[in-house]
Amino acid sequence: MKSLQSRVQALKNTIEKELTLVMKKNNSAFKEFISYELLQSGKRVRPILTFLSSSMCGGKLENTLGVATAIELLHLFTLVHDDIMDNASFRRGRETLHEKWDVGTAILTGDLLLSFAYNIFSKTNFKNNIAYVTVFTKGFSDVCEGQALDKQFEARLDISLQEYISMIEKKTGALCATAAMLGGISSHCTKRKLRALELFGKNIGIAFQIQDDYLDNFGDEKTFGKKIGGDILEGKRTFFLVRSLEINPRDEMILRLASRKISSSQISAVIKKFRDMNLHTEASNLVKQYTDEALNELDVFPSSHEKQLLVNFSRHLIARSS
Amino acid sequence: MKSLQSRVQALKNTIEKELTLVMKKNNSAFKEFISYELLQSGKRVRPILTFLSSSMCGGKLENTLGVATAIELLHLFTLVHDDIMDNASFRRGRETLHEKWDVGTAILTGDLLLSFAYNIFSKTNFKNNIAYVTVFTKGFSDVCEGQALDKQFEARLDISLQEYISMIEKKTGALCATAAMLGGISSHCTKRKLRALELFGKNIGIAFQIQDDYLDNFGDEKTFGKKIGGDILEGKRTFFLVRSLEINPRDEMILRLASRKISSSQISAVIKKFRDMNLHTEASNLVKQYTDEALNELDVFPSSHEKQLLVNFSRHLIARSS
Repeated sequence: MKSLQSRVQALKNTIEKELTLVMKKNNSAFKEFISYELLQSGKRVRPILTFLSSSMCGGKLENTLGVATAIELLHLFTLVHDDIMDNASFRRGRETLHEKWDVGTAILTGDLLLSFAYNIFSKTNFKNNIAYVTVFTKGFSDVCEGQALDKQFEARLDISLQEYISMIEKKTGALCATAAMLGGISSHCTKRKLRALELFGKNIGIAFQIQDDYLDNFGDEKTFGKKIGGDILEGKRTFFLVRSLEINPRDEMILRLASRKISSSQISAVIKKFRDMNLHTEASNLVKQYTDEALNELDVFPSSHEKQLLVNFSRHLIARSS
Repeated sequence: MKSLQSRVQALKNTIEKELTLVMKKNNSAFKEFISYELLQSGKRVRPILTFLSSSMCGGKLENTLGVATAIELLHLFTLVHDDIMDNASFRRGRETLHEKWDVGTAILTGDLLLSFAYNIFSKTNFKNNIAYVTVFTKGFSDVCEGQALDKQFEARLDISLQEYISMIEKKTGALCATAAMLGGISSHCTKRKLRALELFGKNIGIAFQIQDDYLDNFGDEKTFGKKIGGDILEGKRTFFLVRSLEINPRDEMILRLASRKISSSQISAVIKKFRDMNLHTEASNLVKQYTDEALNELDVFPSSHEKQLLVNFSRHLIARSS
């Protein structure tokens, strides 16, 4: 486990150094806002997936730096735009861009971050450029479509579990799939392995998102780093809201939850209701199921120290408490 | 001239048919909003530049359809996001997306339109894919940076003419340059010709923007299609605002203009001031200068009917009254 931790920390440092370079190289009129986004802390899950997928396939770190940076830039673009749409004032303990400055500034900063990502594919001299762009663009399309579904769901009370899974498959699964595939392409892996990386990433992303929903209700506030029940106050279409509505579509409290009418003092009662419905167990089982499906996809890769690191990182991601 | 008009109309119909196809093919949760944008009227200047540049280089229409659609989608993406930033409630006589629905819907619709554009480069099977992506991404970056400069200028009273030109070179020139270059790439033109198309597009874009600023003050309201003085009410950083501040930085009315404190009843007085400073002549001369520079770049192409169409279209664009 110590081996994983030190490796992950090293990769995190690597990607943060790359983001600092992106910042230093640009002379944008928006340098201040771009820096604010690029220099914030983060888990850097997606570029680490890219790095570890690449090294499992025998790729070299230096061939993966550009694409790993691109996937993190794409992720940051989605965060900036999503925070506007969700009226989120804070992220990781700091004011969001649109809160600290204004909506216009945040929209354009997001757009610029995305343009930096695409610029990477124009500038770097690797061979498979168009393969990168194709995979990257699929991720970009899907993540927007996932957010569109999420917004569409805001007005609905009859979302099925399957629809919810389809939404997070696009909103979270797609970027993890893209991250893993970019690592595969940078190490010239076969089509069959690329497909395995796609499914691995997609499923681990779904597991990651359900775990995120779980932590919002059942996490430890100290390690989780944010207040429990944030999703409940916002009426966010989480696994718990969707399933509780499916099970009990006439429950008064659940309907208030779906209509964003829950106050802080009612959070614990809502969580108790989720627990009474046994949704915490159901969620944990789903997380386990999607994690297993993800890891099964890796069977196509021979055993190696590098593969084991990717497996351990995936398990660590899902078992995380923050 | 009739030949130009019928050809332009045919190309306009072609691009609008392509946009309708984009709409029909997508199953987005945001179909309604995407259709609203794709089916609005427009001059389709950029794809027409792509088509005419391509045919001047001997290219075939069918090889240019995809990239011409991509450049129009990129343009529509910028309109949707810029309208939010500019608080514009109407465009071409219709409510803007964020006005009719909400800001979040408009942000995401813009993002989706851009993803459709990049998808075109993933899907079409032409040979020079990565060249397209490189040129297209440069256009995307530059247009964002131009908007960033424009936003930065909002707080400034000391913008030089050169700074203004640099801003519109990015904000308007870049997309016209990209449009012309995409046409060149689709017809496999030489590097030298590609560079000529870039400079042609950039300069015609600058001329187009200054002409746009001109029409806002000195256009005929009937043919212009919008109220005279819209830019004045918004305190937009136009050629006229920038130059009048340069010439007369202490003039009370000009300072009110720069601070967005001009009411409708004062518009004609501001326009009179521009005229007294002879800025209408100065603007016309600049439009002529940049148009000449643009057309001079076309010297590298042999005379042909197709080249003459591009020349005539450019002149028509600049001489337009709407």
